[in-house]
Amino acid sequence: MTVSAFNPPQRILMGPGPSDVSPRVLEAMSRPTIGHLDPAFVGLMDEVKARLQYAFRTKNDMTMAVSAPGSAGMETCFVNLVEPGDTVVVCINGVFGGRMKENVIRCGGKAVAVEGQWGRAVDPQALEEALRAHPEASVVAFVHAETSTGAQSDAADLCRIAREHGCLTIVDTVTSLGGTPVLVDEWGADAVYSGTQKCLSCAPGLSPVTFSGRAVEKVRNRARPVQSWFLDLNLVMGYWGSGAKRAYHHTAPVNAVYGLHEALGILMEEGLEAAWARHARHHGALKAGLEAMGLSFVVPESERLPQLNAVTIPEGIDDAAVRARLLADYGLEIGAGLGALAGKVWRIGLMGHACNRRNVLLCLAALESTLSAMQAPIETGVAVDAAMSAYG
Amino acid sequence: MTVSAFNPPQRILMGPGPSDVSPRVLEAMSRPTIGHLDPAFVGLMDEVKARLQYAFRTKNDMTMAVSAPGSAGMETCFVNLVEPGDTVVVCINGVFGGRMKENVIRCGGKAVAVEGQWGRAVDPQALEEALRAHPEASVVAFVHAETSTGAQSDAADLCRIAREHGCLTIVDTVTSLGGTPVLVDEWGADAVYSGTQKCLSCAPGLSPVTFSGRAVEKVRNRARPVQSWFLDLNLVMGYWGSGAKRAYHHTAPVNAVYGLHEALGILMEEGLEAAWARHARHHGALKAGLEAMGLSFVVPESERLPQLNAVTIPEGIDDAAVRARLLADYGLEIGAGLGALAGKVWRIGLMGHACNRRNVLLCLAALESTLSAMQAPIETGVAVDAAMSAYG
Repeated sequence: MTVSAFNPPQRILMGPGPSDVSPRVLEAMSRPTIGHLDPAFVGLMDEVKARLQYAFRTKNDMTMAVSAPGSAGMETCFVNLVEPGDTVVVCINGVFGGRMKENVIRCGGKAVAVEGQWGRAVDPQALEEALRAHPEASVVAFVHAETSTGAQSDAADLCRIAREHGCLTIVDTVTSLGGTPVLVDEWGADAVYSGTQKCLSCAPGLSPVTFSGRAVEKVRNRARPVQSWFLDLNLVMGYWGSGAKRAYHHTAPVNAVYGLHEALGILMEEGLEAAWARHARHHGALKAGLEAMGLSFVVPESERLPQLNAVTIPEGIDDAAVRARLLADYGLEIGAGLGALAGKVWRIGLMGHACNRRNVLLCLAALESTLSAMQAPIETGVAVDAAMSAYG
Repeated sequence: MTVSAFNPPQRILMGPGPSDVSPRVLEAMSRPTIGHLDPAFVGLMDEVKARLQYAFRTKNDMTMAVSAPGSAGMETCFVNLVEPGDTVVVCINGVFGGRMKENVIRCGGKAVAVEGQWGRAVDPQALEEALRAHPEASVVAFVHAETSTGAQSDAADLCRIAREHGCLTIVDTVTSLGGTPVLVDEWGADAVYSGTQKCLSCAPGLSPVTFSGRAVEKVRNRARPVQSWFLDLNLVMGYWGSGAKRAYHHTAPVNAVYGLHEALGILMEEGLEAAWARHARHHGALKAGLEAMGLSFVVPESERLPQLNAVTIPEGIDDAAVRARLLADYGLEIGAGLGALAGKVWRIGLMGHACNRRNVLLCLAALESTLSAMQAPIETGVAVDAAMSAYG
């Protein structure tokens, strides 16, 4: 019996993630699997930890990769820091803030939602007011980079306010890590999670997380056991913790860790600041092109993530048809809207390895050609020039 | 700045898993990443589902790969099927039965432990008695193939007893799937999980699971939401479910799914029955060699898993030193004991791609040479011959 192999179509991934994975990372993942307790693998885990500390700008000892995608990283933070009955203030300005609230409820916590506008940063004043109204709150959760809208919030300010009210912070940096500054120690953030498949340009499947000493203290002194065995930091720490003696907890996804190690190596070679600058530069060019075409951004410029560009779909244009044609004609993936923005916006990612001049120009040209064939009310013949001018 | 790449040492993995991953699977994982909602990826998910149905011998529609390792597959079964206050009878004859009990407690369930002997199959009579004593029980959980001891239990019989008492069953087949018969529909098992890194010879990181119609019904009619958002089948079903329209839940580990698809393709090319026969054949040869050397098995022959051979460490021999020398001199990994058997046994895996004649002979020769250099009380010069005779 012969069964068919899967040969993936060749894509350019400019959606909300996964982003294009570097060939170096793909090759690293295909190296021979070794045991998850092999001394060589334990050494690799130590290196991954050091590299994640670099990416997160932290000295937190409890820094590691959860063996599952970003959603599990989010859940790791909540199940460990929230006990039944705890009050958690959750700032919601998009899909992922909503998911945070869902996590609080499933942990038996009381969620106080600070509802913000989709497409805007979290309002620090609203958080301040919620904390005044809820002095019993012990945790504040917010999304630094809302993948559903492309809005970036002022994490330093939100962490400061939370701290002033005696709260620990849970911060979602899934889309920001490696693309815009994530300064865990400088912010004084307590539990921060991310994903591998955005600006790190690694395959999806792992979730980098980091916990402050305060957070670890809270986990160690919980009244009740963590409701998840798989995500219980008290156990995971024995496997990822310091020292030569590692306790078996679960079997790490060995080859995925090879990939993350390589992706973080690429980030270090470029340098964090250079990576941030690159994301800003190509965003500037893409923005110039999109605006020249007449498309408008969902998020005000000062609150915008360079790596995730949400633009309003022109009147009368069929969202799915455009994305299908981009995929069919150019192998180009851009993202649909999510939640309240479904059918109303496109999300164009410029993340990690995919954030380069070639992709900016291709995306503008392909979008212009596709929209113009569909009689969309856009300016033609100007987008690529505008982008080139922005590059200078 | 240049950072070093990780070049894994070349190992032969004959521990309790991960087992050696086929080069075909390694290559598949390195194919370019595509989006987790790409039509081509949705098609791949359908194929993976069909291939898992083949491997599990089931027609269950709710058959898929959880996006995390086997421990998360276990947790998926418990968080979905156990509600606070539910009584769950857990058969414990090794580490993983103990972990099941821990899962029940963390779900707020009441665990009734049926404690069996480590290294023996679960005693059906003991289960029967526990169910008579606990008519309120709604779930029975047991491990088909105990990875910590190498004992295989009679899943058909245990499932029958559970059914007669009106209970759903949760069955751990992490080490059995692809190595010995796992007959989900014939057993009438309700929630079955496995791992990719044992007899499927895929990299670790995913957990194949399958749920019967009865189990899905129970999940759909829960009084309270599932405590885990990430593992909530009501949500995961929207992503892995049938039909062209898939709802985004989390970002699947795309490249890991490529690998699983290829690994299952290899299994189908060989055929399930042929794979079972291969595991039995090489176990027979390994057993003949180990016994000729004078090593004794932990598990009685009739309850023994061919793919996981737990043997008692000879008196006065330093467990860790032997394993370190096998690793250093031959690149050969065998497993240590776990839990109550730590320091007392070795676990020699013959799983999937690693289950072949070359490895059987190498393992016997290397073990003999190493033990003999350490003055262990073993027979020398006979193991390889005994294995060859067993092959006939």
